[in-house]
Amino acid sequence: MSTEHEIGELVSRYTRAADQRNGELMAELYEVDAVVEIHYRGPDGMELLGKLSGGAQIAAAMSAPPSGTMAPHPPLGWSHHTTYDHLVSVDGDEAGIETQFITFDVAGTPKPEGGWPAGTFGAQGTIKPIESGYYRFTFRRTDGAWRISHQDVIHDIPYVF
Amino acid sequence: MSTEHEIGELVSRYTRAADQRNGELMAELYEVDAVVEIHYRGPDGMELLGKLSGGAQIAAAMSAPPSGTMAPHPPLGWSHHTTYDHLVSVDGDEAGIETQFITFDVAGTPKPEGGWPAGTFGAQGTIKPIESGYYRFTFRRTDGAWRISHQDVIHDIPYVF
Amino acid sequence: MSTEHEIGELVSRYTRAADQRNGELMAELYEVDAVVEIHYRGPDGMELLGKLSGGAQIAAAMSAPPSGTMAPHPPLGWSHHTTYDHLVSVDGDEAGIETQFITFDVAGTPKPEGGWPAGTFGAQGTIKPIESGYYRFTFRRTDGAWRISHQDVIHDIPYVF
Repeated sequence: MSTEHEIGELVSRYTRAADQRNGELMAELYEVDAVVEIHYRGPDGMELLGKLSGGAQIAAAMSAPPSGTMAPHPPLGWSHHTTYDHLVSVDGDEAGIETQFITFDVAGTPKPEGGWPAGTFGAQGTIKPIESGYYRFTFRRTDGAWRISHQDVIHDIPYVF
Repeated sequence: MSTEHEIGELVSRYTRAADQRNGELMAELYEVDAVVEIHYRGPDGMELLGKLSGGAQIAAAMSAPPSGTMAPHPPLGWSHHTTYDHLVSVDGDEAGIETQFITFDVAGTPKPEGGWPAGTFGAQGTIKPIESGYYRFTFRRTDGAWRISHQDVIHDIPYVF
Repeated sequence: MSTEHEIGELVSRYTRAADQRNGELMAELYEVDAVVEIHYRGPDGMELLGKLSGGAQIAAAMSAPPSGTMAPHPPLGWSHHTTYDHLVSVDGDEAGIETQFITFDVAGTPKPEGGWPAGTFGAQGTIKPIESGYYRFTFRRTDGAWRISHQDVIHDIPYVF
């Protein structure tokens, strides 16, 4: 597998871990000294919203209990962290991928007590884009394995914690 | 072309055949003994919603007349079957790709009898995500050609047939 | 980097230039004699909506001032030009990529004078798919560098200029 595929795979695994809010899967992706910076790219330039330092803190902040601090998905709830149109660079044991991202919030409709009404067809619920922007991943190869050493999450629109 | 590209191309062709509801294009992608399983990943675990056996049955179920049993797109209607963030594995003549998917329903606005009102600009209609989840494709190489041997369609939200 | 990656990178750079409405970035992607044709794939077949000839005209039409003629993004506004499920062909110094596309319009909510209300959380604004269809890129390699020589933009739904 080429380096391009290998680091692309890390981005795919990041989206799965984020969808699942799974701290164990998330922790495997980051270097122990990794840093994540969350920004809002506003009309007056980049504004730093928050910073996570170290793989353990990153994994905890991006996942739900038992290992993390995010709320778990509500019943019938889910999310998709989708990436697009990668720009890839590789330089020895350092590499980078910039992507567009959109996060979709998924909310299923519970089956009514008396069953679905006659004529109901297809997927029942709503799928809504709620976040967008750019991810900038920097990867480092240590002992033959690529991991994320730095990540910028750059939101297009105001983000309130 | 690498095996990774070749099987990724099958996923792209799958989305085109699904967008077009085109049974001929669909049939070219599957092994004659292929199986498609449609699931809903609910709060109580995976629930099997349906199973299609054999390339001919699969192609018929996923396409519109003359060869298929789906309704054709309505006038000015269309769909996009989009995939994201592939996880690829290759092992000799077997391979797999897991993707996120979102299906968008597209409905154009018919041009009014008297023409578009003054000031109308841009695309006229709605584009709405209606399905989401994960595809798991298994591929097999037979006589040098890769085809889909198994596909799981895993919906995030309740799905009613 | 393989030819497949190199031309895929051009598609990624196209989406960034389009998001930014940046004429300089756009101009770098096209051959000087490139042609862009914009179509609507209606129920009666393909309808040509417009044609741009030459890299300079293309860049001007797809970007905002100073170099372009599009309106700039409104305050807190942005867009994402996303592509999906590439079909790639390479033949010597000619190559092609067909993609699905969806354009998302992003509109941030301005921070209220008195600050965000108590309990506000997450991204503030709307992210809405407003255009969809297919891009067909043809690339040419000249003096070792790949550039876009022809692009079809094929809208799914009626488009009014």
